[in-house]
Amino acid sequence: MPTINVTDQIAFRADKLNKVSLFEVPQFFVDVYCLEPGQEQKPHAHADAAKVYYVLEGEGVFLVDGEERKLGAGNAVLSEAGDPHGVRNDSTERLTLLVMMAPNPNH
Amino acid sequence: MPTINVTDQIAFRADKLNKVSLFEVPQFFVDVYCLEPGQEQKPHAHADAAKVYYVLEGEGVFLVDGEERKLGAGNAVLSEAGDPHGVRNDSTERLTLLVMMAPNPNH
Repeated sequence: MPTINVTDQIAFRADKLNKVSLFEVPQFFVDVYCLEPGQEQKPHAHADAAKVYYVLEGEGVFLVDGEERKLGAGNAVLSEAGDPHGVRNDSTERLTLLVMMAPNPNH
Repeated sequence: MPTINVTDQIAFRADKLNKVSLFEVPQFFVDVYCLEPGQEQKPHAHADAAKVYYVLEGEGVFLVDGEERKLGAGNAVLSEAGDPHGVRNDSTERLTLLVMMAPNPNH
């Protein structure tokens, strides 16, 4: 049974947002994104894939389809297929996100 | 921007596991499963869809592809397409799970 302790996977990089892969199947991937203060995922879009961000810890500024919203732990954000989306850490604390995208563009 | 405070969606039912829908798109659904002590999702399989459980709170006994494992908050479990999978709350505390399945069988 593929299981993973997500907390144990959290790891940051000084130079950029760190994406840690948890699971990859053809139907989706699940990652943890780890953002130091000031780091970001620039807005981008996937024509056929949808994404969910779930805030594990910290506070992120999410940009989806031209809207911007600051959300803390316990909140989830949906980016539908084709929507430009991104996230940045404007805070002074670390930000960790559980991220799921389907279908998996790497397959 | 579709956002949701997951914590606010947690709600239990006395008679059975409560599934609360957070997001539904053709590519996936995201639910919160809320299990009182003794409640369960019986093992079942989806031929073409994969699922991830992420433990938000409490401790669950997961059954995937004939294996059984007890996992607490911060752990994630993958059930690949075709694998029988289920979860039960054998503990004395409430169990809440973030659950994602792709593609969405309801679409």
